[in-house]
Amino acid sequence: MSLDRLREEVLEANLEIVRRGLVLYTFGNVSGIDREAGLVVIKPSGVPYEKLAARDLVVVSLEDGAAVEGALRPSSDLATHLVLYREFPGVGGIVHTHSRYATAWAQARREIPCLGTTHADYFHGPVPVTSRMAGAEVADDYEHNTGAVIVRRFQGLDPMRMPAVLVAQHGPFAWGRTASEAAHNAVVLEEVAHMAALTETLGGGQAISQALLDKHFLRKHGPGKYYGQPDR
Amino acid sequence: MSLDRLREEVLEANLEIVRRGLVLYTFGNVSGIDREAGLVVIKPSGVPYEKLAARDLVVVSLEDGAAVEGALRPSSDLATHLVLYREFPGVGGIVHTHSRYATAWAQARREIPCLGTTHADYFHGPVPVTSRMAGAEVADDYEHNTGAVIVRRFQGLDPMRMPAVLVAQHGPFAWGRTASEAAHNAVVLEEVAHMAALTETLGGGQAISQALLDKHFLRKHGPGKYYGQPDR
Amino acid sequence: MSLDRLREEVLEANLEIVRRGLVLYTFGNVSGIDREAGLVVIKPSGVPYEKLAARDLVVVSLEDGAAVEGALRPSSDLATHLVLYREFPGVGGIVHTHSRYATAWAQARREIPCLGTTHADYFHGPVPVTSRMAGAEVADDYEHNTGAVIVRRFQGLDPMRMPAVLVAQHGPFAWGRTASEAAHNAVVLEEVAHMAALTETLGGGQAISQALLDKHFLRKHGPGKYYGQPDR
Amino acid sequence: MSLDRLREEVLEANLEIVRRGLVLYTFGNVSGIDREAGLVVIKPSGVPYEKLAARDLVVVSLEDGAAVEGALRPSSDLATHLVLYREFPGVGGIVHTHSRYATAWAQARREIPCLGTTHADYFHGPVPVTSRMAGAEVADDYEHNTGAVIVRRFQGLDPMRMPAVLVAQHGPFAWGRTASEAAHNAVVLEEVAHMAALTETLGGGQAISQALLDKHFLRKHGPGKYYGQPDR
Repeated sequence: MSLDRLREEVLEANLEIVRRGLVLYTFGNVSGIDREAGLVVIKPSGVPYEKLAARDLVVVSLEDGAAVEGALRPSSDLATHLVLYREFPGVGGIVHTHSRYATAWAQARREIPCLGTTHADYFHGPVPVTSRMAGAEVADDYEHNTGAVIVRRFQGLDPMRMPAVLVAQHGPFAWGRTASEAAHNAVVLEEVAHMAALTETLGGGQAISQALLDKHFLRKHGPGKYYGQPDR
Repeated sequence: MSLDRLREEVLEANLEIVRRGLVLYTFGNVSGIDREAGLVVIKPSGVPYEKLAARDLVVVSLEDGAAVEGALRPSSDLATHLVLYREFPGVGGIVHTHSRYATAWAQARREIPCLGTTHADYFHGPVPVTSRMAGAEVADDYEHNTGAVIVRRFQGLDPMRMPAVLVAQHGPFAWGRTASEAAHNAVVLEEVAHMAALTETLGGGQAISQALLDKHFLRKHGPGKYYGQPDR
Repeated sequence: MSLDRLREEVLEANLEIVRRGLVLYTFGNVSGIDREAGLVVIKPSGVPYEKLAARDLVVVSLEDGAAVEGALRPSSDLATHLVLYREFPGVGGIVHTHSRYATAWAQARREIPCLGTTHADYFHGPVPVTSRMAGAEVADDYEHNTGAVIVRRFQGLDPMRMPAVLVAQHGPFAWGRTASEAAHNAVVLEEVAHMAALTETLGGGQAISQALLDKHFLRKHGPGKYYGQPDR
Repeated sequence: MSLDRLREEVLEANLEIVRRGLVLYTFGNVSGIDREAGLVVIKPSGVPYEKLAARDLVVVSLEDGAAVEGALRPSSDLATHLVLYREFPGVGGIVHTHSRYATAWAQARREIPCLGTTHADYFHGPVPVTSRMAGAEVADDYEHNTGAVIVRRFQGLDPMRMPAVLVAQHGPFAWGRTASEAAHNAVVLEEVAHMAALTETLGGGQAISQALLDKHFLRKHGPGKYYGQPDR
């Protein structure tokens, strides 16, 4: 994919999270990566979404985050995105938001239990929450360390089967094979977080069985998937 | 009714559940039946609603689900619809959604108690919830078995007086004499689920009396109904 | 005011409760009265709001509810409106809705406590809830008896200082000196019901002092009122 | 800044709180100050926002609240604004709303704990709540005393690091260096209040560490801030 097309996709994914109500003012950011070129395209910091154009997006090097194209400062969360791209090789796009319900679970420092098939269609188990960051991790290289605390939490987890995480007392990151899939996952994460919170107020639910979890996740994402139309 | 007109009605019912906020992305599906012809019209799987046209709908045989018209794959929940059409002879349209509040009750595996007249205007008693499905039911013929577990739950219940069910840990199905009535019932179910959840947070309510339940249900649906304008 | 102008005002008030999100489908109805002529103008039963025109409204006699103008059936709740007009002489307009939060309080059979100044600006004390209706009251003349149970609850209360009530397990009625004021009060009632429900989830609130209640209610509604612009 | 430009900014800030859903009908008001001229521009009382024009805004003297320009009555909360401008010298704009979630916290008389980084990005600690006002404070000079009770609560707090307060059983005031910053803070306050309320329903959260609080607040507002684009 050309860098121009990647810019367009990252722009569109940024707009998608706004349209879906995940964003207040300038909160949140989406990036995408061109793995062959080793380049990451990301939203500039603090720019209103309604004014965002493809040419405003910032292009940086995956290796060291150095600016390659673009006059604006990249999102202040860039360093977190870079850690995730380096450590999760299947990931092509990353979304960070402060979406309301996912953030509430992050603030409560609770993983989102898998209470139903809506959840199972996208996330193969409970959505994990990171540990709190130590004072030293906050003081120096905070955004880099935010990535590190996510990676640590994913030891033993497959990020392609669990395309989201809650950073404790902060908010969600979601990802996917592309920026648009990452945005889609961030939107569904918010819905799943909302439904799980409502279930709590009704007395709580039970995690679904492994059989039902596998059935729903795999009918959409497994090798024998039969949800949707055949890939062309 | 001609098949073309049925297609139009099923399309319109699919759009109605979107307009009313019951649908995220491609979640949910509506079907309608031509009982004389033994044909079911249903939404294709995984197609965005905003692009849906009447010609995209899939026509299948009630008897065996075989495709009769349409180039696209039918909704992955087709088999559930077929079981319900076969077992509930008065039903002319079926809606499945993951609408937020009804799904939360399904995830909590609680029936929705009849706490007020809004509920009684449409549902003649608590909205039932199915049992959980066994591993074997999930592993083979999952969507067919989802229908079977609903039918089992309706032993002793009249589906024309209780036009909805919650599939445990999954979400609601609603139905009616037509696809548009089914969509209408799905929308009201979500509202009733919302109100009942709020009532819970206020300390809970009590089921209304049989007299009030009958009064409201029958003034809208009984032989001596007097709500609305006279049928023409 | 001419009957034509009353029709326009009642139409506009019916549309206002839709615009403000208090109405699903055909739920709810607004009426207004011309006390000199002894005529009540009310929404027809079961007609979609988007198709409602001033000429569809039904004009009935206050005395006996007999139709004076209009080809359509009046709202099935007409008899309740008539009782209230007869018993509350200052009332010029009445609104009935199944708005979500007010209905939840009605379903929980709890009065809405006066927890803050938003409430005190409109309702001079807790919003009362009726008792449940007896089987016999439901069986015969149900809608008339709904009015009677409201009137009974208002013994000792001034309907002009408390322009709303919750009918137990049913929903709210609100009123005012005109149909548009009644609609305004119904909208604020829903907001106040929402805020009070949220306060409950935060551990609950305490009723405000009599001094603060009087201050806010009277600065808007008392003889020395100073909120808003001077009456012209 | 010319008075005309201040009028435009105050108008725009009034419209912003409507667009963001903080306002029902005429509830709420925004003002801005020209400190050199000693003049305050404020919304008129009880005027619908959709009809509000810059020329309707009222200009009063900071010193004594006397009208300088404008034919309409100023907001009934003017006296509260004046106290805050006099006591908080860094403040250039003030917003008062009855926004739903902030008001619920005010009604519950609880400060909003700092449970996450969304909060920390704007408010350097828990958002404080005032004490209840005594009967005498309510009876005489109520709006002035509302300001006084806020000022009393801010002893030991820096209003530029804590640009909001909850008035007990009433609702929030927010402020900023300008009217538009005040409106922005009022919008974020409502979001933070919403997220904190949701966190409560999930079992509650813990206040974030001082290190994380400082990090987030200072990366946006401190001397070495690096969020957003460099000031021009």
